[in-house]
Amino acid sequence: MTLMIHPVSGIPEITQGIDLGTLIGDACSSSEFGLTNGDVLVVTQKIVSKAEGAMVEIDQNDPLSHKPIVEREAVRILRRRGDLIITETKHGFVCANAGIDLSNVARGQAALLPEDSDRSARRIVERIRHNYGVSVGVIISDTFGRPWRRGVTDVAIGCAGVAAVVDLRGTEDALGRELMVTEVCVADELAAAADLVCGKAEGIPVALVRGVDSQWLRESSIQDEVVRSPSEDLFR
Amino acid sequence: MTLMIHPVSGIPEITQGIDLGTLIGDACSSSEFGLTNGDVLVVTQKIVSKAEGAMVEIDQNDPLSHKPIVEREAVRILRRRGDLIITETKHGFVCANAGIDLSNVARGQAALLPEDSDRSARRIVERIRHNYGVSVGVIISDTFGRPWRRGVTDVAIGCAGVAAVVDLRGTEDALGRELMVTEVCVADELAAAADLVCGKAEGIPVALVRGVDSQWLRESSIQDEVVRSPSEDLFR
Repeated sequence: MTLMIHPVSGIPEITQGIDLGTLIGDACSSSEFGLTNGDVLVVTQKIVSKAEGAMVEIDQNDPLSHKPIVEREAVRILRRRGDLIITETKHGFVCANAGIDLSNVARGQAALLPEDSDRSARRIVERIRHNYGVSVGVIISDTFGRPWRRGVTDVAIGCAGVAAVVDLRGTEDALGRELMVTEVCVADELAAAADLVCGKAEGIPVALVRGVDSQWLRESSIQDEVVRSPSEDLFR
Repeated sequence: MTLMIHPVSGIPEITQGIDLGTLIGDACSSSEFGLTNGDVLVVTQKIVSKAEGAMVEIDQNDPLSHKPIVEREAVRILRRRGDLIITETKHGFVCANAGIDLSNVARGQAALLPEDSDRSARRIVERIRHNYGVSVGVIISDTFGRPWRRGVTDVAIGCAGVAAVVDLRGTEDALGRELMVTEVCVADELAAAADLVCGKAEGIPVALVRGVDSQWLRESSIQDEVVRSPSEDLFR
């Protein structure tokens, strides 16, 4: 089945307290592609942080003024090189600078990660169901680097209504043989796919993915399904 | 712009020496979506390895018979836990079992990684240009795990005709402020997106992505743009 990924335009600058679910639902409904059962909305972290007020003041004349906040937000520092700090956040994410971000926010401000991105996703799912009677999945995405490979990619930091990890262990491969792996992190793949249309600089904070396997539509959580504890991680 | 991801069906079981570019080009051309300038084809590693004869014999009655081959193919062992071996391959990829794979291959065989997946991608690009007069990008994808996060995702191990990493440093964000990061590994995001329609068990080894930013269509290489040397890696 063909997958379609639509950038959702028409979303205004986000302020604290705004009802993100209604805003996104309205933007989709008034678009040419609309909103239908089984759609998955990928929402970039920045607008979630803004709507939830997860922002802090920084000194706009000091390019390193957010660094003390990084130290405060991190529960563990994994590596340092120059200004780069690789952290583990309280959510269990491993990323640069505790996920604190200065791009696409007003000068003198920095965006923190949302308190609980699974909950943020769930609220959008519920609001859209309430307003439109439509069941969608929602993924909150953020841009992370990774070891071994250059370049950043978007990953899922929260989700609701669409699986984070799909377990294909035990299903047969095309030659009738049992597959040995394979737990696929479809939430990260959906976040990555969405970034291809959102870009970094274009002010498109949401993408709508249509055509997702209906078996993936279920209750879900990045915290429970994706975040690996240090004890099961071979690189911490 | 909307991105469309079509699974490419009608590709037969692959044997050594087969002309993969012609095969894939024919399958696309005879599909309802066809083949047009700027399309990106994501081709899973398994069929590339089969076409190039990058296969080895193993004892089908011994579930660990591929392990000596893993030790041989790896240039470095990073971690071991039980049967799991995290390796660095000669290509510079960090992955489980040196990328050796037993799923979707005949019993008694294991697939190695292609010798040079950038070259494999380039050959498909050239063949499709020769046969159809169409300029496409090609990504060779494989399924890798990663630290910190559970679940595997598809990444790019080779590419041609479409950027591996897009440099957004210096472009302005939506608020007119210079973006600080951002080199995005669009090749990995394309590989991840394609996996959403290929799945693991359905025998769909190729996806066609239509609507990719035309600025990304250029000469490219995973080896040069994505593989991070141990010296610049904070986790080796």
